[in-house]
Amino acid sequence: MNPSYVEELHALPTPAEFARFVQRNRPVVFRGLGFELAIPALKKWDESYLREKLGESELKIAATPLGNADSLVNETFVEPAYLSMTMNTFLDRMKEKKADEVLYLQSQNDNLHEELKDLLDDATSDIPFATEVFGAQPDVANVWIGDDRSVTSVHKDPYENLYLVVHGTKTFHLLPLTEFYCLHERLYSTASYKRASQGEWSIERHDSQIPWIPIDPAESVDLERFPRFKHAQVLTVTLSRGDVLYLPALWFHRVSQTASRDPQAPLAVAVNWWYDLAYDSPTWTLSNLVRKMTLALDGRVEET
Amino acid sequence: MNPSYVEELHALPTPAEFARFVQRNRPVVFRGLGFELAIPALKKWDESYLREKLGESELKIAATPLGNADSLVNETFVEPAYLSMTMNTFLDRMKEKKADEVLYLQSQNDNLHEELKDLLDDATSDIPFATEVFGAQPDVANVWIGDDRSVTSVHKDPYENLYLVVHGTKTFHLLPLTEFYCLHERLYSTASYKRASQGEWSIERHDSQIPWIPIDPAESVDLERFPRFKHAQVLTVTLSRGDVLYLPALWFHRVSQTASRDPQAPLAVAVNWWYDLAYDSPTWTLSNLVRKMTLALDGRVEET
Repeated sequence: MNPSYVEELHALPTPAEFARFVQRNRPVVFRGLGFELAIPALKKWDESYLREKLGESELKIAATPLGNADSLVNETFVEPAYLSMTMNTFLDRMKEKKADEVLYLQSQNDNLHEELKDLLDDATSDIPFATEVFGAQPDVANVWIGDDRSVTSVHKDPYENLYLVVHGTKTFHLLPLTEFYCLHERLYSTASYKRASQGEWSIERHDSQIPWIPIDPAESVDLERFPRFKHAQVLTVTLSRGDVLYLPALWFHRVSQTASRDPQAPLAVAVNWWYDLAYDSPTWTLSNLVRKMTLALDGRVEET
Repeated sequence: MNPSYVEELHALPTPAEFARFVQRNRPVVFRGLGFELAIPALKKWDESYLREKLGESELKIAATPLGNADSLVNETFVEPAYLSMTMNTFLDRMKEKKADEVLYLQSQNDNLHEELKDLLDDATSDIPFATEVFGAQPDVANVWIGDDRSVTSVHKDPYENLYLVVHGTKTFHLLPLTEFYCLHERLYSTASYKRASQGEWSIERHDSQIPWIPIDPAESVDLERFPRFKHAQVLTVTLSRGDVLYLPALWFHRVSQTASRDPQAPLAVAVNWWYDLAYDSPTWTLSNLVRKMTLALDGRVEET
């Protein structure tokens, strides 16, 4: 019952059509929907516009040596270094493409209503058919700006997600929530990247642990080490400019990207809208039950 | 996350509004919706009309001594006797109200398109907002005609259900699919009521078993015998003429009824539309998982 592909539609859905995907917790791609929704960001957000609107605004930028923010490095979960810089500086440094510095605007703090709020009118505050089906405005809207080198490792979010590509492409590797068992989650110590003023990277350990998934579904997976992964079925889908993905709540996803070849916007730019998930839905209950069963099998007990 | 009441709405929902209940697998009552949908059955289906339209049509009628079709009698699951009679005979015998004979038109074989198809134009072939959300016409539409004495014991159906009361009332005792654990289902031998020509009832045993639930959530439950039921939370709701219940797929339900006091239609009459459930939804997966976990706890293995 987990088809091996992501369904695609080429027109605006009615709320009822969209609801069928939500009800089934199944992803769907709407090709060209950004244009159908006439989201001005698609036409406006080139480099000169971003500089003009936000050139001197301070941004919080994730920095890593390899584009590996929030992922496992030598069996440790490593957060990026967070740097504060203006949009102008960020865009300058994105162009430099230093071999040991990958920058990613990925602050998932509702940045479209915060540090990037001057872009809000271009990006619309919601996706109307989704707002109708979820019955409320999005909780959070985020802008993402990066390049080919940044990868987001596999994880899930407790949100219903509508994801629009503005420039470049985004490739999603997707697994339904029921495949948690296959993903060999375990606890890892946490740490953060730090960069000395001379440019050397170090890893600073924290005094905490986080459950994380050690598998990269885009790479060949060591089935001796992760035998349950042989039961997993990964769906992949690539979004281009104007495409919108409905990424259902609690699906596991890994995200990679390519920058646009447009010299006016040599970036990977996206916007996503997070809607509250229904905590009284079978989706949430099923996710918890599968998680608890898997932890019990593995002899893990989790504080809640 | 299982509120103790059934939500109520007093107007036609948009498909998106209805979809929020479907997505959450939560029941909702629409009061007076039959009138809002202008379903002619509500005005037309009195006794003289049923005799005029269908007087000589042959019907399959469930007969029991106590109104207890498809329920447990002395630890055996007993089906009703099925009698063939015309609508005129059925209505005559419903009026007689013999103390040892309870009749119920409850053939769940899409009877609105079969033996009662002359009523189809009065009952509409679907509920439009539901058809839009489920993405297909109903699989099955059934008419139910009975009196106060018939009770349907607690069970679940693999369908999304829209249920309209035409005459009298229907009271539903409802439990979400996740409460399967609390219901102490086990296997019972099956049998059927038989009635000799002299009128004595007997029970004829079959050579098969069926999993059934031994609890009546409308009565006081013996918690020594059924200790898990203390964790159950039963929702109850009563529908009157023109009210529509959305009974989500796989919810456990017990149904009782009262006949209308209208001398022109001294009956309990209802129509329900069964829509296919989404077998790739978390609802279906969760139901199976809860069932399998409970069976495993109880040391039961079930052929699938």
